[in-house]
Amino acid sequence: MKLYETRTAPNPRRVRMFLAEKGLLDQVELVEIDLQKGDNLTPEFTAMNPMKKVPVLQLDDGTCIAETMAICRYFEEVFPQPPLLGRTPLEKAGIEQWLRWIDYYFMMPTGMCFQHTSGYFADRMTPVPAWGEECRTDIQKFLGFLDRHLEGREFIYGDQLTAADLNAFATVEFNKVNKIRVAPEQVHLQAWYERMKARPSAAV
Amino acid sequence: MKLYETRTAPNPRRVRMFLAEKGLLDQVELVEIDLQKGDNLTPEFTAMNPMKKVPVLQLDDGTCIAETMAICRYFEEVFPQPPLLGRTPLEKAGIEQWLRWIDYYFMMPTGMCFQHTSGYFADRMTPVPAWGEECRTDIQKFLGFLDRHLEGREFIYGDQLTAADLNAFATVEFNKVNKIRVAPEQVHLQAWYERMKARPSAAV
Repeated sequence: MKLYETRTAPNPRRVRMFLAEKGLLDQVELVEIDLQKGDNLTPEFTAMNPMKKVPVLQLDDGTCIAETMAICRYFEEVFPQPPLLGRTPLEKAGIEQWLRWIDYYFMMPTGMCFQHTSGYFADRMTPVPAWGEECRTDIQKFLGFLDRHLEGREFIYGDQLTAADLNAFATVEFNKVNKIRVAPEQVHLQAWYERMKARPSAAV
Repeated sequence: MKLYETRTAPNPRRVRMFLAEKGLLDQVELVEIDLQKGDNLTPEFTAMNPMKKVPVLQLDDGTCIAETMAICRYFEEVFPQPPLLGRTPLEKAGIEQWLRWIDYYFMMPTGMCFQHTSGYFADRMTPVPAWGEECRTDIQKFLGFLDRHLEGREFIYGDQLTAADLNAFATVEFNKVNKIRVAPEQVHLQAWYERMKARPSAAV
């Protein structure tokens, strides 16, 4: 299997962390895609993912799976241990709820704040800086929410690590591009962040 | 079980259609939440879903599950037939990919175009009309993509109905608020739309 990805981008990192926590990193060959050079805009890459985004998983028979959580779902189904997307119907639903919250209220504003205020992709999109600043406010709100939620909790959902922790951690870290960090008074979030940072998967 | 929802909103409709296709609509009591009156902003509702969004599923023991796809995931796990989220690992991943594409490149621009150009929620958010217009362009792009994809296909993914069809259909219909319809030349999309419209689940 090949994983087309970009080393510094947050979504491929979520997949790498997911694979690392399952002990599966050696199952995939990592293929670097340079987004600024436009490696993702070529006809070859568009044939793999018409949305022109990384990551894309290519199976040995050539079948391609795009979208971070679709790739994680594939690995969860084929290699269920340790479960990162839940075991029971209620756990699966609760984790899915958190994954959606993290995507919609944290990861998406993070990406849009970056795209609309940094000018990084100004050659291929129309930045709307006022929207980027709205997104910045949403990011700060979510960090506060997460800090309050983590009081007395080791993990975001339930009593063991799930993809919710991995995705939130990768998003906290990527926010350095927006110059947003965990605030000193967010002690519960900070403690969780340090626990996550200490896991081997944080280094992949 | 109670499903807190808003009759005219697109996300609750996705859940109702999902339940209808599984023959489960009679399993839930529908509780109407008036978004314009702010029923979703009360302390009681916020305790059920801190994101203050519909739909929310409340189980008989009081446990709440927010987020459309988390609710659908719960029902898929408890009532697997007919499968709407896939059977094999590859199907599950392929459908997840499509669900994400539909959410990110179609449903989210649809909601943001509405919120940022209509002034509907101007009492509780800051509309950025330029962003709303960017989203309108993205919606049109996705409709074109979907039309090309549906050439020679009965369903969006594989050879049977999945949640991808339900979510895309509900989003096409909700776009009437943005005054966006399937274009006459989008014949594949139009034919699929008419097939979906003829299903009993389209009327719930």
